[in-house]
Amino acid sequence: MIPLNSNLSTLKRSGIRVYTNMAREIPDCAMLTIGEPDLDTPQPIKNAAWAALNQGHTHYAPNQGIPALRQAVADYETGRGNPTLAEQVLITVGSSQALFTALLGVLNPGEEVIVPVPAFSLYETIITVAGGKVVPLDVSKTGFQINCQMLNSLITPKTKAIVLNSPNNPTGVVLNEESLAAVKEAVLGKPIFVISDNVYSLLSYGPCPDLCLDEELKQQLILCQSFSKPYAMTGWRLGYLVCPEYVMDRLLLLSALTIAAVPTFLQEAGVAALKEDTTPMREIYRRRRDDVTQRLRQMNLDFPEPEGAFYVFVDIRKFGMSSDEFCTRLIREGKLAAVPGSCFGVEGYLRLSYCYSDEELKKGLDRLEAFIEKL
Amino acid sequence: MIPLNSNLSTLKRSGIRVYTNMAREIPDCAMLTIGEPDLDTPQPIKNAAWAALNQGHTHYAPNQGIPALRQAVADYETGRGNPTLAEQVLITVGSSQALFTALLGVLNPGEEVIVPVPAFSLYETIITVAGGKVVPLDVSKTGFQINCQMLNSLITPKTKAIVLNSPNNPTGVVLNEESLAAVKEAVLGKPIFVISDNVYSLLSYGPCPDLCLDEELKQQLILCQSFSKPYAMTGWRLGYLVCPEYVMDRLLLLSALTIAAVPTFLQEAGVAALKEDTTPMREIYRRRRDDVTQRLRQMNLDFPEPEGAFYVFVDIRKFGMSSDEFCTRLIREGKLAAVPGSCFGVEGYLRLSYCYSDEELKKGLDRLEAFIEKL
Repeated sequence: MIPLNSNLSTLKRSGIRVYTNMAREIPDCAMLTIGEPDLDTPQPIKNAAWAALNQGHTHYAPNQGIPALRQAVADYETGRGNPTLAEQVLITVGSSQALFTALLGVLNPGEEVIVPVPAFSLYETIITVAGGKVVPLDVSKTGFQINCQMLNSLITPKTKAIVLNSPNNPTGVVLNEESLAAVKEAVLGKPIFVISDNVYSLLSYGPCPDLCLDEELKQQLILCQSFSKPYAMTGWRLGYLVCPEYVMDRLLLLSALTIAAVPTFLQEAGVAALKEDTTPMREIYRRRRDDVTQRLRQMNLDFPEPEGAFYVFVDIRKFGMSSDEFCTRLIREGKLAAVPGSCFGVEGYLRLSYCYSDEELKKGLDRLEAFIEKL
Repeated sequence: MIPLNSNLSTLKRSGIRVYTNMAREIPDCAMLTIGEPDLDTPQPIKNAAWAALNQGHTHYAPNQGIPALRQAVADYETGRGNPTLAEQVLITVGSSQALFTALLGVLNPGEEVIVPVPAFSLYETIITVAGGKVVPLDVSKTGFQINCQMLNSLITPKTKAIVLNSPNNPTGVVLNEESLAAVKEAVLGKPIFVISDNVYSLLSYGPCPDLCLDEELKQQLILCQSFSKPYAMTGWRLGYLVCPEYVMDRLLLLSALTIAAVPTFLQEAGVAALKEDTTPMREIYRRRRDDVTQRLRQMNLDFPEPEGAFYVFVDIRKFGMSSDEFCTRLIREGKLAAVPGSCFGVEGYLRLSYCYSDEELKKGLDRLEAFIEKL
């Protein structure tokens, strides 16, 4: 066996997949693990892809993305108060490749990235591959908001970036104005990037403050966005990145050597997606959120109120078990799969997803109720 | 401006794009620059994508690729004498992401990769981003074949891989048995990978020896392949990588954090593609190869005989100019764009592509003839 890139040696398979696989071994196990819309991609988006295919748009797209989609993204971002030029837009293979390009593109070995936790584990794995160091900021102790003093205490000369994700996976919490002000104060004018993972921003049930709209931070801000969640397009792998032009100059080359370009005719479907109204999808998730949180309250379970995305992060500290033990027993004894907080960098919680039909949600919550009654 | 990943600082835009853009500024400039089939993707492949879309296959694919495509690839590789399990197959965003995953996956900073030149510039850019060092092996002095002694003289304790590309971009030359024997002898049993970029192997006009079929090298071999060229699917960004299982264990995680997965319904189109007969496309290119090389001989131009791919690498040493000067003047004075050898790491040549209609090829070659007559 020939030794490989040593940065890869510590990577582990996604904890979500570990628990999903464990559940698949138990007959009739219910699952509330997956962070993926159960809904189907709207037909007009599919039709746009088919039309492009039939027009022979099967040749290489420009590395940065087709002009029509970059302009549509620029118009969309500008329209929501984030003035953006098409030149600042890079079309990516979902938000995964946007985050990968942003983090690998800015990090030198040994540089630090502050990640408020609980957080999606992808940030840590990318930072590890880039040779950087994750500096976790535990916000579970501060109401899942960013505390100014705690943040400042983590900043060192090696701090290169902070990753924001609001609404958050796994909590559904939206960062408030105070949290964003703390971040701005900590980084403004310093050689520190704000990498804003906005993949759930269109699935926010109320106002969602966003540092991407802050004119003063423009030269430090990298926005990562995806069509996956609001348009039920996870399997299309379509996303984008917005950054200052001096950053694009390098990130474009990095993206070009990673993937060449995003599939051409899928980008035309992206133009069609941006014309879709995401309200109906958001309202489906809002209603489910209301139903699920009502059930959890009836079970006397605590959780930070989910204001977006499609997750609830349930506090299980009163049961006196690690989140791994709780979730393993929940699968084996309760026939329900959920994801332990440990997969997101904090203990004492589990993540339930409500990307499921009402029937599946009821089945899962009934099982959770039965399981905790026996504890 | 915040400093970025310093490995990106020396990257340049693709030379091919530089000359293509220069040509676009000249009215009515002919182009023989692009390495992309002018043909359209066969209809059965498009239909398979549309069928998958309509069946709602718009959700995440497994990180490694859908089982049906991995099995179809394994069957295809096994059928050509390369026994492969579906577990050894990773579906990628074209061969670009296969090469990126292979090189970033195996390289540690400072490790060396031997690249026979002339070569596609992508290898160098990926190796640079991975912090590795390109060690060029100039095969233009040895009939575009690999010389055993020259290769051995480049191997050091830091050698981590050698990249093979046969048929070759930009020469169209197929590596002969002696070249492959030299590579095998140099690396067998050493901690050195052979990364075999086989993207033109289905566009080979005669036998194409392949180290991927060598049982003894299995544990050191990473095969990168693409649907782009033989099926006219460049814009689909669909490819794959085959490697030993101990390597897959890590490359799969790297690919997962780079792109998550390849678009689901495009993978089903890949299954359909593998059922297509690539002979008609290859015969079109073979006839064009014959026509183009006949014209070039009539102009008294030398070139290594192209045995595959869709390029001719024309020797321009007798004109006493650098390849950049020749190609710049060819655009400005001759109204024809070609790519200088310098873009592939060697001087004294230019690359002509014959991914063009007979009419465009005639126009381009007429202009080349007129240009050199005036020199």
